[in-house]
Amino acid sequence: MAAPEHGAQLLLGAGDDAAVLQPGDYPLAVTTDALVEGVHFRSSWLDAEELGRRAVEVNLSDLAAMAARPRFLLDAVGVPAHTPAAWLDALLDGCADAGEAAGAALIGGNLTRGDVASITVTALGEIPGRRLERRGARAGDHLLVTGTLGDAAAAVAAWTRGAPPDAEQRRRWARPRARIAAGLALAEAGAHAAIDLSDGLLADLGHLCEASGVGAEIERARLPRTPGVDRLDAAGADFAAAGGEDYEILAAAPPSMTSDLSALALRAGVDLTVIGRCTDRPGDIRLVDAGGRPLPLREGFDHFRPAGREG
Amino acid sequence: MAAPEHGAQLLLGAGDDAAVLQPGDYPLAVTTDALVEGVHFRSSWLDAEELGRRAVEVNLSDLAAMAARPRFLLDAVGVPAHTPAAWLDALLDGCADAGEAAGAALIGGNLTRGDVASITVTALGEIPGRRLERRGARAGDHLLVTGTLGDAAAAVAAWTRGAPPDAEQRRRWARPRARIAAGLALAEAGAHAAIDLSDGLLADLGHLCEASGVGAEIERARLPRTPGVDRLDAAGADFAAAGGEDYEILAAAPPSMTSDLSALALRAGVDLTVIGRCTDRPGDIRLVDAGGRPLPLREGFDHFRPAGREG
Repeated sequence: MAAPEHGAQLLLGAGDDAAVLQPGDYPLAVTTDALVEGVHFRSSWLDAEELGRRAVEVNLSDLAAMAARPRFLLDAVGVPAHTPAAWLDALLDGCADAGEAAGAALIGGNLTRGDVASITVTALGEIPGRRLERRGARAGDHLLVTGTLGDAAAAVAAWTRGAPPDAEQRRRWARPRARIAAGLALAEAGAHAAIDLSDGLLADLGHLCEASGVGAEIERARLPRTPGVDRLDAAGADFAAAGGEDYEILAAAPPSMTSDLSALALRAGVDLTVIGRCTDRPGDIRLVDAGGRPLPLREGFDHFRPAGREG
Repeated sequence: MAAPEHGAQLLLGAGDDAAVLQPGDYPLAVTTDALVEGVHFRSSWLDAEELGRRAVEVNLSDLAAMAARPRFLLDAVGVPAHTPAAWLDALLDGCADAGEAAGAALIGGNLTRGDVASITVTALGEIPGRRLERRGARAGDHLLVTGTLGDAAAAVAAWTRGAPPDAEQRRRWARPRARIAAGLALAEAGAHAAIDLSDGLLADLGHLCEASGVGAEIERARLPRTPGVDRLDAAGADFAAAGGEDYEILAAAPPSMTSDLSALALRAGVDLTVIGRCTDRPGDIRLVDAGGRPLPLREGFDHFRPAGREG
């Protein structure tokens, strides 16, 4: 991806005390997120290259939800002593490849020993137009999500009970793709607010509603699911509602914006589904059936879930 | 510290998917560095507030060596389950306080569980004038360092053999202060190259010489030492030459620049000492006595030293 006009330019890459870039006209979004072995993943769940990719994508997903275009990455990697050089090379290749595919260059990093493998990525992106935040949703807004929900949580649930996950569910967990084009398209089309789905739909919807001072009502049957998650029946519905690690975008949008969802999806590069609406009852998050009757809210599947301080 | 004219402005701080800043006219230096318990420190060596400060200062030191003014920080923190909230608060206070004292705002972060405590800081700074890099040193340049060398290594050596370190040596290790004003003053005065001293003088001198394609000759007796390190005789000289974690700046400068060292030191806010010169023998790093006779190069004190990949 070519640098945008008036975009930031790299003046000095990795290898000195710091990387140096000449910013362009656009605001810069900056985020950092870590993956720690035994907390966010087990080494048997994915290979080194996938780990590098995943660490980058979960950060790019934060940029996507702000309507930012990824530009630069730094990685701080910790590995146990005697880690094979090939493993480390694959990890860094995964980082660099995922970044490059999204238009972001790996401009610096740090390598240290650690008891377990860990990778902390810092991602910088440029916001070429409107910025999306968690705040801004209004009562009456439609709530829409990109893609499908629940596959990643279904994979983790399988691993946790000692079973091999469905191949598609494993792929969704191990190789998420940040919804960069979708974030940009949603911002351009006039979405009011957005958040990326890492903690689970209901939890992240709670964050968005809290920041916006609204409530929400979500219709369970509308949650977009793959056939594999659908076949899991009630468990699949729970994975979609609360499972986490989907790395899709949840957005609040004026109803006028969702009247031609297929045209918007074309620009977003991914299916979009209206799953509910914002209400004027701050703090009140409801999951309802097709008749509008409240369904019990299950706890999130918080095994292997980080404590949530993000920024 | 007020934002510089035409400096970057914070548009959105911590609490959303990413922080957002509006860059100013200046190039941005970006660096990331981690401190991991059992690798870079033991919990008995420093308290939580000092750990937070130290994690920030070692990153600010990288910015200082580029002649950048610190502006923004992000921290990714890992702590074991059941870490007291007060400990975590003190850590984050230490981060924020160290940043604030240097003019840098904590604009985001991430908190996760981990087997041991770890903190990865990303620091962004603005380069208001000339930029310093590792490359650029020329044969005939004087080599100068800020402050004094060897205290931090002496403290670690004491801990490693089970003895309490000297109070001043412990302080130098636990509470380093990045030489920000010195980096800016050295750049403005016309220094050719610089690096911050984290791996040890001889190792970091090697990095600077390699990047610059020069050699170097350092006179051991000239290495600036506190009285406490001086009293350690040969061991003290070794700590100063190879001990590491000093977080001073090593710079290569044209001889004309060092003719009035006290005036330069006044602007730098710290003593400056000429310790040797660059030679036209690439790769040849010599430690010599007052008569110019080569002294044996000791290995660095690489216990508790990270594998060195920086950027």
